[in-house]
Amino acid sequence: MNDLQQIKDYIRKHKLLAPSDKVIVGVSGGPDSVFLLYLLHQWQHEFGIHLHVAHVNHRLRKAADQDQQFVETLARKLKIPCSTAVWGRKEGQRSSLEERARLYRLQFFSQLAKRQKTSLVALAHTQDDLAETVLMRLIRGTGLQGLRAMRPSSPYQSLEIVRPLLGTRKKDIHQYLKKHKIPYCIDITNQDIKFFRNKIRHQLLPLLVKDFNPQIYESLANVAEVSSADYDFLEARATDLFRRVTKVSADGTTLRIPLTSLRRCHPAIQRLLLRKAIERLQGNTRRLTFTHMKEMEDLLAHRPDNSRVHLPQQMVAQKDKKNLRLSRTS
Amino acid sequence: MNDLQQIKDYIRKHKLLAPSDKVIVGVSGGPDSVFLLYLLHQWQHEFGIHLHVAHVNHRLRKAADQDQQFVETLARKLKIPCSTAVWGRKEGQRSSLEERARLYRLQFFSQLAKRQKTSLVALAHTQDDLAETVLMRLIRGTGLQGLRAMRPSSPYQSLEIVRPLLGTRKKDIHQYLKKHKIPYCIDITNQDIKFFRNKIRHQLLPLLVKDFNPQIYESLANVAEVSSADYDFLEARATDLFRRVTKVSADGTTLRIPLTSLRRCHPAIQRLLLRKAIERLQGNTRRLTFTHMKEMEDLLAHRPDNSRVHLPQQMVAQKDKKNLRLSRTS
Repeated sequence: MNDLQQIKDYIRKHKLLAPSDKVIVGVSGGPDSVFLLYLLHQWQHEFGIHLHVAHVNHRLRKAADQDQQFVETLARKLKIPCSTAVWGRKEGQRSSLEERARLYRLQFFSQLAKRQKTSLVALAHTQDDLAETVLMRLIRGTGLQGLRAMRPSSPYQSLEIVRPLLGTRKKDIHQYLKKHKIPYCIDITNQDIKFFRNKIRHQLLPLLVKDFNPQIYESLANVAEVSSADYDFLEARATDLFRRVTKVSADGTTLRIPLTSLRRCHPAIQRLLLRKAIERLQGNTRRLTFTHMKEMEDLLAHRPDNSRVHLPQQMVAQKDKKNLRLSRTS
Repeated sequence: MNDLQQIKDYIRKHKLLAPSDKVIVGVSGGPDSVFLLYLLHQWQHEFGIHLHVAHVNHRLRKAADQDQQFVETLARKLKIPCSTAVWGRKEGQRSSLEERARLYRLQFFSQLAKRQKTSLVALAHTQDDLAETVLMRLIRGTGLQGLRAMRPSSPYQSLEIVRPLLGTRKKDIHQYLKKHKIPYCIDITNQDIKFFRNKIRHQLLPLLVKDFNPQIYESLANVAEVSSADYDFLEARATDLFRRVTKVSADGTTLRIPLTSLRRCHPAIQRLLLRKAIERLQGNTRRLTFTHMKEMEDLLAHRPDNSRVHLPQQMVAQKDKKNLRLSRTS
C-alpha cells in the first residue's frame, strides 16, 4: 500500500472514530493488528483519539509468551498504555476452542473498556477475513445474518467494535510492513489447513482468484455489505413485532408467542422472530440449523396441538391451542 | 433414486400442479428434462394434468437436429403433443449467446402457452443447477435477488414457471435413467469447462464436496430458499413505495423520484427502489453492478445538484433540486 488515504477515507465514511474517543486496540502481535496499531498511533493527533493496547495471551502455542512480550515492548516503544490477560482455559466445554478463545477476548475487552471508561474497541479484521467468513458461512449454509459477516462497526453487548481495515487486503498490509521494516509475530497455526478457515484462505480463495474471479475479495465484501443493509431492515421489523407480541415468564425460562401473530407475519419475519425468541432465552442461536427452522415452521403450519420440536441446548418448542411456547428444559 | 415419492411431495408442498392444469414441459432431450417428462407422464392421471412438450432447436451444435428428432419421437411414443421451434439467431448483439438462447426459449414458451390457453411451464432445473447458480452469483458478487437463484415456482411475464426437480440431485436422475434403461441425449458442451457454469459444476463443486462440506448442494439450496423469502419481503415494501412515489413520463423514457422519499427510506429499500426504476425504464437490470449502485447512493447523499451518474445501456441518473431523474439517452 503506497497510499494510506483509503483507510482514512474508510474510517471517515463509516464514522468509526470521533475526536476524544478512547480506543482499545486489540493487538495479537500478528501483521494485521501491528499494522493497525502503527496507523492509529500515527493518526492519533489528527483524529484526536487516545489509544490503549489490549493483548490476550491464549497460551495456545509455544510462542505465546514471546508474542505477549513483543506486544508489551511495542506498546512501550509507542508510549501507549497496554493491558494483558492470560487465558486460563477450562477443558471439556461444548463450544470449539476457537469460539471460546474469541469469547474470552471479548470479555476481557469489555472489562478493560469499563475500567478505561470507554466502549470503543478497534479490531484488525481485513477484507480477507471478511471474504473468508462469507465463504465459510455460505459453504455451511446460512441466511442473511450469516452473510453480512463482519461489519465496519457492530455492537457487542455494551461495546462498539470498529474494524478500520475491513476494506484493506492482507497482501497490502504485508507489503507496507515489509517496506517500512516493521516487525511482527508469525502465527504458524494460520498455515495449518486442518482448520476450516485456513483451507478457505490457502486453498479455496486462491483457486477462486485464479480460475473464477480475480476480484473475488471485493465481490464477497459487497455481498456482505448488501446483506448487512437488508438484514438490518428485516431485523428492525422483527424486533418491533417481537416486542409487541412475545411474553417471557418471570423466571426467564419460557417465552410464548400467539399463533395468530406468527401465522399472520411474512415467512421471512416469522423466521427472524423465532430466532430472536431462542436468542432471548439462551443468549445465542448456536447450533440452530436450517433443519430446526424448517421443523418449527412445519410445527406451526401442519402439526397437531401439543406437538413439540426439540431444539439445540435443551430447548423445546411446543404448540398449544393459542401459542407457541419455547422453553429451556434444563 | 429408488423413491420418487420425494418429488411428489415437493410438487405438493410447493403447490406446483393442480388438477386440470395444462403443462408445457420444456424438453431439451438431455437427462433431466427426459426424466421430468417421464415422471409427469407417469403421474398425469394422478395429478389430473395435461401435458404438451416444447422443444427448441438452438442449432448451436452438430447434434441439434438429432436431439429434435429424439424429442419428437419420444413425445409421439408417450402420446403427448409436441411443438418445436428452430432458433434463427441474429449475430452481433450485445448479450451473451447463452442469455439470448434463454430469452428465445422463454419467448417460444410464452407464445405456445398462449396458443394452448395455459400459463404453466415446467422446467427440469435440478438442485445441482440451483447450487451452481447460487455459487456463480456469489462469486460474481450479488445481493439477495441473485442468491435466491431459481425458485420452485416463479412468474415470468404472463407465465408461471414451475421446477418440480429443484430438490432433486442430478446424480439420482442419472441413476434412475440408467436403472430403467431410459435413453436421452448427451450435450457435450456441458463438459466444456471454458464455460463458467461448467467450471463451477466440474471443478468447484466437487472440490467443495470433497474438502469442505459433503452437503454443499443442500446448503446452497437452503441459502437460496431463505434469500428468496427475505427478498420477497423487501421487494413487497419497495414495490409499494415505488408505486406511491415515482412518476414516469408519458413516453416512458424518463422516471423521477422525489429526493425526500429516497432519503427517508432505509438503504436496503432505497437500493431496491433504484433497481426497480431502472428495470421499469429498460425492462431489465443487466450489467448493473454494485459499483453503479454505490455511485447512485453517493450521488444522492453527497454530490451537488445536476450531477450525473452514467449507467449501463445508455441510462443516466441525474439529481436536481427536488428529484432524482433516470432517463434513457438513446
